[in-house]
Amino acid sequence: MPLNRQFRLAARPVGMPKPSDWTFTEEPVPDPADGTLVVKVLYISLDPAMRGWMNDAKSYIAPVALGDVMRAGAVGRVVASKHPRFAVGDHVVGMFGVQEYAVSDGKGVHPVDPALAPLTVYLGALGMPGMTAYFGLLDIGKPKAGDTVVVSGAAGAVGSVVGQIARIKGCRAIGIAGGAAKCAYLTGELGFDAAIDYKDEDVRAALARHCPRGIDVYFDNVGGDILDAALTRLALHARVVICGAISQYNSTTGIRGPANYLSLLVNRASMTGMIVFDYADRYGEAARDLGAWRAEGTLKTRENIVEGLDRFPDALLMLFRGENTGKLVLKVADA
Amino acid sequence: MPLNRQFRLAARPVGMPKPSDWTFTEEPVPDPADGTLVVKVLYISLDPAMRGWMNDAKSYIAPVALGDVMRAGAVGRVVASKHPRFAVGDHVVGMFGVQEYAVSDGKGVHPVDPALAPLTVYLGALGMPGMTAYFGLLDIGKPKAGDTVVVSGAAGAVGSVVGQIARIKGCRAIGIAGGAAKCAYLTGELGFDAAIDYKDEDVRAALARHCPRGIDVYFDNVGGDILDAALTRLALHARVVICGAISQYNSTTGIRGPANYLSLLVNRASMTGMIVFDYADRYGEAARDLGAWRAEGTLKTRENIVEGLDRFPDALLMLFRGENTGKLVLKVADA
Repeated sequence: MPLNRQFRLAARPVGMPKPSDWTFTEEPVPDPADGTLVVKVLYISLDPAMRGWMNDAKSYIAPVALGDVMRAGAVGRVVASKHPRFAVGDHVVGMFGVQEYAVSDGKGVHPVDPALAPLTVYLGALGMPGMTAYFGLLDIGKPKAGDTVVVSGAAGAVGSVVGQIARIKGCRAIGIAGGAAKCAYLTGELGFDAAIDYKDEDVRAALARHCPRGIDVYFDNVGGDILDAALTRLALHARVVICGAISQYNSTTGIRGPANYLSLLVNRASMTGMIVFDYADRYGEAARDLGAWRAEGTLKTRENIVEGLDRFPDALLMLFRGENTGKLVLKVADA
Repeated sequence: MPLNRQFRLAARPVGMPKPSDWTFTEEPVPDPADGTLVVKVLYISLDPAMRGWMNDAKSYIAPVALGDVMRAGAVGRVVASKHPRFAVGDHVVGMFGVQEYAVSDGKGVHPVDPALAPLTVYLGALGMPGMTAYFGLLDIGKPKAGDTVVVSGAAGAVGSVVGQIARIKGCRAIGIAGGAAKCAYLTGELGFDAAIDYKDEDVRAALARHCPRGIDVYFDNVGGDILDAALTRLALHARVVICGAISQYNSTTGIRGPANYLSLLVNRASMTGMIVFDYADRYGEAARDLGAWRAEGTLKTRENIVEGLDRFPDALLMLFRGENTGKLVLKVADA
């Protein structure tokens, strides 16, 4: 077995993660013990939620311990197996971490089929981001045909799927994203009804223009000013889905709460948080729908691929700088 | 007919309402036209929501126009009637305004029975505050027996009923209020399991102590620091009911949003606004339950009565200074 190269968490970041928050380590890849398998990691998923896992705070999942390999979803190929469910050559997804090889007991590891979709899609629209969009929008947002659905972070891995599912369900989809290129991608390629460039437009005024009857479902990935702007435009009985708050994750002055939250009262609206892991027993349902929509061409997927494990520390920051369009993925090895 | 004395809105308040925000007027009481009735106002309800009605802002109800009699719920006696549903001598509740006599077309006017409960109770536990507590807790909060229910503004008209209904439904009830006397009232007279004096205790630490398994239902009347403290202690799938935000209504620097709102995500919790008027077609159901609980002694009610219409401008401020225990009522005339 070759050496395994890894990024480990060296320090709890203050604000944006710095290079010194990581340690780069090398160690031999062990032979698998009975009941385990060894996966060669091909693509690593870079997700906004990873920033939260770096904090030493009670959350929906334990923090990554200092010194541990950074937690990350990934797709890879089984290169050794003493596990009854997995054979050498199988392609699998799982929480394999920011490293070249992962030893796993098979928990949370699922086979994927590279003949049905490129491997990277299993980290995006057919992976956790797609599941997040699916259950967050349909289960929490409960859109009805004709509803106006607004999503922030709309050109990202989750947001781009949210808007497309909204369209599939007969809703108007309005995306909020940063920059003309992302907005053109939303309306041109993905079929959103409108896109709002928060770097160039007054979001509140643009929402008033695009949502004359108010927002029925607001799917929030960003928090901050944009959440506050959306709250001013809620329709009666609107549903706000809190999926993330990427604008706040690197704040050194604390999270900013939504000053317009009393719009929930005025409009008898709700704001509900969601974590995709709660839907684990229904992933199959989402995978079937998302796969079918992708196959028929109504769900378009895109990955933004950065090459090289060594680029991890900076590639992660692309999320927080708003530099990715579609699912951000780190390519570690050729398939 | 005698003169009708009235408080009219003279200016939109900035911060706490000042005496100069009101005009005191006198005008003759007209004879009723066909289809209308004249009510002699006996007790006027003073409610935190009245502060919102004074702002020129889109809300769930139109603002009070400058120059108009201030909107207020009240209970009174019919003194003249050309309305088929009401006879002279009937006692009625309705939005009669801050004045001694009201002319009404009967819309939203309901008879009340002084033999069943003192008239002031129809402005409190058997009136809008009681309905608000009933539907907000049961319909939005959805408490299950054994749940921990926390309510802020717990010694007020709504909060005191919320905690008692929670107890009736088999929940633990924790009240947050200001001052030792209010807290003693909650645990001593109303049967709350615990009370937290926000003027004397660290609310967050006290919630941790009193809610070891977290808060299942948080009923918020106050906003600000206390809402933020409660958010840190939510149990999984907690329901936060946004009924009001009295700490914020007189802010001159804007509403402060709940910085800990991402606790909704971590705990897959929801925050939902409510307006009692939405439940108008179910008031009868609430009135039956509240009346029965009051009759059997499981629901205790208290009104804090200030005498004299002329004391209105200052009496209203008692709400925002936290000076009332129970339902604050302005007595205008003897029954």
